[in-house]
Amino acid sequence: MRTSYRTLRESETGAQRAAIRQGEYASHTAGLAKGFLQANVVITPVEYALDFMRFCQRNPKPCPLIGVSDTGNPKMFTLGADIDIRTDIPAYNIYRDGELTDTVGDIVGVWRNDLVAFALGCSFTFEHALFDAGIDVWHISNDSTVPMFRTDIPVVPAGPFHGDMVVSMRMIPTERVDEAVAISGRFPLAHGSPIHVGDPSAISIADLANPDWGDPAPLPATHTPVFWACGVTPQAVIRNAKLPLCITHKPGHMLITDVPDDAEVPVVSQLFHLSINQGELT
Amino acid sequence: MRTSYRTLRESETGAQRAAIRQGEYASHTAGLAKGFLQANVVITPVEYALDFMRFCQRNPKPCPLIGVSDTGNPKMFTLGADIDIRTDIPAYNIYRDGELTDTVGDIVGVWRNDLVAFALGCSFTFEHALFDAGIDVWHISNDSTVPMFRTDIPVVPAGPFHGDMVVSMRMIPTERVDEAVAISGRFPLAHGSPIHVGDPSAISIADLANPDWGDPAPLPATHTPVFWACGVTPQAVIRNAKLPLCITHKPGHMLITDVPDDAEVPVVSQLFHLSINQGELT
Repeated sequence: MRTSYRTLRESETGAQRAAIRQGEYASHTAGLAKGFLQANVVITPVEYALDFMRFCQRNPKPCPLIGVSDTGNPKMFTLGADIDIRTDIPAYNIYRDGELTDTVGDIVGVWRNDLVAFALGCSFTFEHALFDAGIDVWHISNDSTVPMFRTDIPVVPAGPFHGDMVVSMRMIPTERVDEAVAISGRFPLAHGSPIHVGDPSAISIADLANPDWGDPAPLPATHTPVFWACGVTPQAVIRNAKLPLCITHKPGHMLITDVPDDAEVPVVSQLFHLSINQGELT
Repeated sequence: MRTSYRTLRESETGAQRAAIRQGEYASHTAGLAKGFLQANVVITPVEYALDFMRFCQRNPKPCPLIGVSDTGNPKMFTLGADIDIRTDIPAYNIYRDGELTDTVGDIVGVWRNDLVAFALGCSFTFEHALFDAGIDVWHISNDSTVPMFRTDIPVVPAGPFHGDMVVSMRMIPTERVDEAVAISGRFPLAHGSPIHVGDPSAISIADLANPDWGDPAPLPATHTPVFWACGVTPQAVIRNAKLPLCITHKPGHMLITDVPDDAEVPVVSQLFHLSINQGELT
């Protein structure tokens, strides 16, 4: 049985993950899980995990780390009660020696005891806030995937991980750009404020109509292109690193978490503690 | 030649580190480096580094990770141009098998090619902001070390790292507690908002006049005790983990960085990039 995007959008995060886990929904997750963090995912063998984690720490704008599994344990317990990273993403990309070899609906048969899963915050989170402020986000309203581009902005390297930043682009009404910058800046776990505003050629993007990932969006003259650091950056970096095995989400097809998108920390048990103790403040 | 605290307080961060590196200053760093992040430091053999980094990711209130060295490289290049973790801290504690065995002024002779250094944000950062708002911080005004206490708040475990949170305590004028909470909440890289306000027994602190680390502070009846998650937490956790070798700063004796305390990301080269590109916004 298939679940439609519009039906799923009305469900709770747990029910959304259940539909994905059971294979009832396999499409993109933009516009889903309103109020909760969604995550880009990277899974590597443990021998690369420390360098990858250093890479994320050094590049928090493209790679805001919100969760890391124990080695070999597919349950990402800090992000929600029941999250199984092998089944709870709509679509996975499998890279071998830096080449995309498969796109699959689950990784139960690929999972190994030496794998570590990393969850990175995602721009879908702040898009909800833009939307709530009345700033239309075209790819959500039109059920497509945000356009993403390679740039010439270098990332800070760590071990084998090096390369240039990938950005996602949204056309924002020119008179509301400052507001969009401020709104997204409130979500440091979801890329925060933009990396660049305006002229795409300043960061070596040749043609806004031809994104490297995702779908093209209209480019109205009344709007300004605004570029945020993107969680697809590690996918580009992984190609450079030529890891023997690396698994990621398929761009646009994210992990839905139980962490509120305005949470101070992305750890469900600590949020529970904070809600009890900070309740005394009022 | 010795440099006094009051002289050092007028210097730039690089000059402060130089005085520490040359052995001219070996005392606490509270009140120094105004406007810049200071850091708690933990150094472990690489075999424990991934678990320790997971521990920090899962406990960002006590352990806000702001920098990680490459394995065997003592230069923490993301936090400043010239930082050498072997010499740039006023005093180090060396733990072997979970026991404090030495307190030393540098670790040049102890450093090994398999060590990884971690820098964690520090409460001194938000104390400057409290002070600027006219909220007196007693231990700074009185040239002593903040009182720190063990609690019964469990941390989220990772590998061998488990235990309870350590907190630092500041007496805040009762009518200004809400303000102090809001001010510190603006510094997520420096423990953010408090973990607990008021009754110490609610988090199993028996006697505010007898801190587990640091110096006692007066307890005026006009003030309320406010407790922030503390970067000494990993030192308690390390004792439990009984690592064969672990090196930390001596409590109160921090690493001074070149990262502004209101920085969006704790990476000096990325800040440079952001300042160029976000300059176009105005």
